[in-house]
Amino acid sequence: MQKYISSEDIVAMEKQTRVHFINSIGGFKSVTLVGTADSDGNTNLAVFSSLIHIGAHPPLMALIFRPSPPERNTLNNLLETGFYTINHINETIYKKAHQTSARYEKEVSEFVATGLTPIYKNDFQAPFVKESAVQIGLAFREKIDININNTIMVIGEIVQVHFPENCLSKDGFLDIEKANTITCSGLDSYHITKKLDRLSYAKPDKEITSIISDYFE
Amino acid sequence: MQKYISSEDIVAMEKQTRVHFINSIGGFKSVTLVGTADSDGNTNLAVFSSLIHIGAHPPLMALIFRPSPPERNTLNNLLETGFYTINHINETIYKKAHQTSARYEKEVSEFVATGLTPIYKNDFQAPFVKESAVQIGLAFREKIDININNTIMVIGEIVQVHFPENCLSKDGFLDIEKANTITCSGLDSYHITKKLDRLSYAKPDKEITSIISDYFE
Repeated sequence: MQKYISSEDIVAMEKQTRVHFINSIGGFKSVTLVGTADSDGNTNLAVFSSLIHIGAHPPLMALIFRPSPPERNTLNNLLETGFYTINHINETIYKKAHQTSARYEKEVSEFVATGLTPIYKNDFQAPFVKESAVQIGLAFREKIDININNTIMVIGEIVQVHFPENCLSKDGFLDIEKANTITCSGLDSYHITKKLDRLSYAKPDKEITSIISDYFE
Repeated sequence: MQKYISSEDIVAMEKQTRVHFINSIGGFKSVTLVGTADSDGNTNLAVFSSLIHIGAHPPLMALIFRPSPPERNTLNNLLETGFYTINHINETIYKKAHQTSARYEKEVSEFVATGLTPIYKNDFQAPFVKESAVQIGLAFREKIDININNTIMVIGEIVQVHFPENCLSKDGFLDIEKANTITCSGLDSYHITKKLDRLSYAKPDKEITSIISDYFE
């Protein structure tokens, strides 16, 4: 049976029910760990499911920040230093990744609290997560206030990418399923994936075909 | 072997290689069909992988629009009428969904070209996709220019949601895997999912436990 829910029904929901419902109806999401450090080198790690692709040239990604903690430490750190990392989550670390969403005191590093390992590479100012197969270093570029609900969009430019070489296809596609990256739904549901297909560039009046990825060895 | 790519390497990539690479490194994405009609009732349907959750109260979602067609028809229509739909993609229709990304002439409806079925419900002004299990009707709320690369973020408020009743958990979580919703990676890779777990709300010094979803019948 199909169920219909109206805007009045949504407003009438108990707060936590509405949060679960609205967070889960938008589809599967990127779920990653954002690593930062303040200017004294104190590290912070937070799970985000609001990552979005903004453009490839220049290579830009955005994150949405809500008005309340614990996301504030991440925001303060990346504005202070200008740098942050985005680290993919796999089946081995997703419980630790979820645990970073607990409201730890500012003095507590979520790296220490969860047992994930900070690692510094190539003189990049923010810590990567050693246990992540795909690690991205970003430089802060722009902060946009979303006034309608007091959220903030932060846009960063990709300046470093670390990934397993055998997951890169010769056409540029990085096979994140092969890298064991997982996805999430709603606030708390984690999922592995199984590839259906890669599809050819669509053109009018032309049949779509499968793309067989040709990986680097 | 881990591979390292710098910003200089990214700039030096051939354009289409860079587009594949940057689009795939951000993690799995929501992939949905956006349905619109112009004021004469001519329908349009386009696949988007840039959906993002903005907030639950009011219930808001955003989409990113690039400067070039074919996304322009969707943008023009939703600005003209104020309404649009977001429809989940499942294994049965993902090839048709991908085909909507072909650059059809403005007079051609992607519904007709791909064989997906427009359906109107509850006097909502934009067409839903009949073959989608989860259908969301939105009212346009805000357009934000992202000047750094000439993209546009469109924020809409959720005013209708249609979904299979047996996929709704009593805590508000909609089990989109149970509704056969799929996810995507990069420009052209489609994936089904397999749930690992739902995890309890994280608190400092408290062990995370599994949540067993209790569904409505």
